[in-house]
Amino acid sequence: MMLDIPAIPAPNEIIARQARQRQNQLTKPTGSLGRLEDLSIQIASIQGKIKPDVSRKAVVVMAGDHGVTHEGVSAYPADVTPQMVHNFLTGGAAINVLARQAGARVSVVDMGVAADFPSGCGVIDRKIAYGTMNMASGPAMTRQQAEKSLKFGMEIAWAEIDRGLDLIATGDMGIGNTTPSSAIAAVFTGEPVSRVTGRGTGLDDRGWETKVAIIEKAIQLNQPDKNDPIDVLAKVGGFEIGGLAGLVIGAASRGIPVVVDGFISTAAALLAFELAPGIQPYLIAAHRSVEAGQRAMLDKLGIEPLMDFNMRLGEGTGAVLAFHIIEAAVRILNEMSTFESAGVSDRS
Amino acid sequence: MMLDIPAIPAPNEIIARQARQRQNQLTKPTGSLGRLEDLSIQIASIQGKIKPDVSRKAVVVMAGDHGVTHEGVSAYPADVTPQMVHNFLTGGAAINVLARQAGARVSVVDMGVAADFPSGCGVIDRKIAYGTMNMASGPAMTRQQAEKSLKFGMEIAWAEIDRGLDLIATGDMGIGNTTPSSAIAAVFTGEPVSRVTGRGTGLDDRGWETKVAIIEKAIQLNQPDKNDPIDVLAKVGGFEIGGLAGLVIGAASRGIPVVVDGFISTAAALLAFELAPGIQPYLIAAHRSVEAGQRAMLDKLGIEPLMDFNMRLGEGTGAVLAFHIIEAAVRILNEMSTFESAGVSDRS
Repeated sequence: MMLDIPAIPAPNEIIARQARQRQNQLTKPTGSLGRLEDLSIQIASIQGKIKPDVSRKAVVVMAGDHGVTHEGVSAYPADVTPQMVHNFLTGGAAINVLARQAGARVSVVDMGVAADFPSGCGVIDRKIAYGTMNMASGPAMTRQQAEKSLKFGMEIAWAEIDRGLDLIATGDMGIGNTTPSSAIAAVFTGEPVSRVTGRGTGLDDRGWETKVAIIEKAIQLNQPDKNDPIDVLAKVGGFEIGGLAGLVIGAASRGIPVVVDGFISTAAALLAFELAPGIQPYLIAAHRSVEAGQRAMLDKLGIEPLMDFNMRLGEGTGAVLAFHIIEAAVRILNEMSTFESAGVSDRS
Repeated sequence: MMLDIPAIPAPNEIIARQARQRQNQLTKPTGSLGRLEDLSIQIASIQGKIKPDVSRKAVVVMAGDHGVTHEGVSAYPADVTPQMVHNFLTGGAAINVLARQAGARVSVVDMGVAADFPSGCGVIDRKIAYGTMNMASGPAMTRQQAEKSLKFGMEIAWAEIDRGLDLIATGDMGIGNTTPSSAIAAVFTGEPVSRVTGRGTGLDDRGWETKVAIIEKAIQLNQPDKNDPIDVLAKVGGFEIGGLAGLVIGAASRGIPVVVDGFISTAAALLAFELAPGIQPYLIAAHRSVEAGQRAMLDKLGIEPLMDFNMRLGEGTGAVLAFHIIEAAVRILNEMSTFESAGVSDRS
C-alpha cells in the first residue's frame, strides 16, 4: 500500500480581504473584537464565503488502545478505553454533554480498541488491531497499519462531509495515549522527552519518571525518522492518533476548518502538518492543555490556542467548547449592522 | 439621601463541598475539566443548588455620557453614545448578536446619555443628567447623583430578578468612559495613572498622553477619598459605572452570580467591592481586556478572567461569550454520568 495524500486547496485570499473590510465597517471600533474578528476571517477564507456558515458541526472521537500501558504509564487501567467508548455511545460522557450544548453531533470511531463492541451499538468500526504493540519493546505498529490509520481517518472526514458539515472537531480516547503523543512531540520538535511529557490522567512523580524513561527508551530503540512522518507514527504513535491526523487532512482537502482539541489532537495535527503542510491554515487550536508538550507542537504549527481552562480530558471537550466562540465570530461578521446602515458616526 | 447597601448572603459552603464531591465521581480523571469544574461549584454554591440552573440569562447595558470628552480623550465623537443605544434597541450591535446566540435578553438603560430618546423606544430611562460634568475642571457629579446611580443599578438588578433570572452580565456604553475607569483604577489600586490607562477605542500616542495628563489632573484637582467609594464615584466616575456597581450589589444581594465584562465593568465591580466586599464570591471575570488598567483591578478583586481574545469593545460582549462557558460548566455537573452509573473503572 502507498498512501495517497490529497491536495489541500489554499484558502481564498480575496474573500479574506473582503471579510476584513466588512469587519471594519461594523459598528465597533476597528479591531475591537480581537480574535473573534480574525477567526471570522479565517473561516470565511476557508469556506470561500463572505458570509460563512458553521451550523453543521461534528466532533469525531477516535479511540484506540496502547501496548505501552503494560509499562505502567497511566493512572487508569486500559479497560477504561472500551468502557468510555460505551459511555460515549450512551451519552453520559463530558463530550456528549458539551456537544449537545453546542449543537454538534458526536461520531465515535474504534480505530483499535482492545475489546469488541456489539454490532449495532453505534461505534464506527475501523479497528486496525486490538491495541498497538508496546513501543518500549519494538514499533507500535507496522508501516501498513500506520498508513491504514491515516487512510481511515481521511475516509471518516469525507463521510462526515457527505452527511453535511461546516466545522469539524477532533477528539480522542485511549488510556495511555499521552505517551505516544509525547514521543511524537519529542521527535518532531526536537525537545527533550522530559520537557514534552506530562502527568496524563494523574501520575505521581515516580509514575512520571517511569513514563519519561519509557518514552526515551522507545525512541532510542525504534529510531523513528522525523523526515518520514509515517515512520514516526508507526514506531511511536497510536491508531487513534493516525486516524485523527488523517481526519485533519481529509477535512482540509475538502475545505472544512478543523478545531484541534488538546494534547493528543495537537500531536495528530502536527503529524498531519508534517505529511501535508497545506493543512495549516485550516487549523484552529481550541485550548491550551495542562500537558506541557502541547506548547512546542503548537509553536511548530504556528497556532495559538483560544482558551486556557486547565483542562486535560481529551475526547474533544476543549474543541467543542471552542465551537461557541467560532460561532460567535461568524455571527458577528454575518449579523452586525454597519456604521452606515445603523446611522452611527465613525471615528472623528 | 443616605444610600442603603443591602446585606450580601454568603454562598453555601455545604453545597460547594457536595458539588466538588459530585465532580469527582463523574466519568473523567479528577480535576481534568479544570476551571469548568471550579465554575460549576461556584455557581452551585451561589445558587445553593447541587444542580444549578443558568437558563435565564440577561445582559444589562448601561449607557452614559462624559463631560471629560471635551478634553479630547476619545477617538470617537460623543454623539456615538446615543447612536449606539439606538443600535442596541434595533438589534444590530455586537452585544445583540452575541446575546441572541447565548439565549440571553438585553436590557438597555439610559443612566445619563446626553440626548433624549423617544418614549416607547425600549430604553429603560434612569437618566440622572445629560452626561457627567468634566472631571478635569471639577467633580464629575454630585454625591447625591452618585448615590442615585448606585440605587438605580440595584433596582434594575432586582427588576431583572423579578422577570426571572439565573445569571446576569454587565455591559457598558459611553464614549469617553475608559477615562473615568482608569481614574477609578488609579485611585483604588494606587497604581500610577500611566500604568492603568489604555488607548480606549483607538487613541494614538499623543492622544494617550493627553488622556493620562487629564486623568492625573482630575485626581489632583478633585482629591477623591479612596476610603469613601461614593466620593470616588462622584469625583471621577460615571453614571453607567455607578449603575453597574449598583447592579452588581443588587444581584449579589439576591443570590445571582454576576459575569463581569471588560475594563469599565471591572471598574464598576471594584467600586461595588469597595462598598460591599461580600459581593466578591459572586463575580466571574469574563475576559482580559486590552485595556492595561484592568489587571490591577482584577488582582485587587482576586478574580482571574476566563478568556483573552484581545477584545476592547465593552457592551457586555465578553461577558455574554462567557455565558457559554458557564453553561458548559453547569451542564457537566448536571448531566454527566458517574463512574458507578456508567460502569467505568476509577483509577487503579
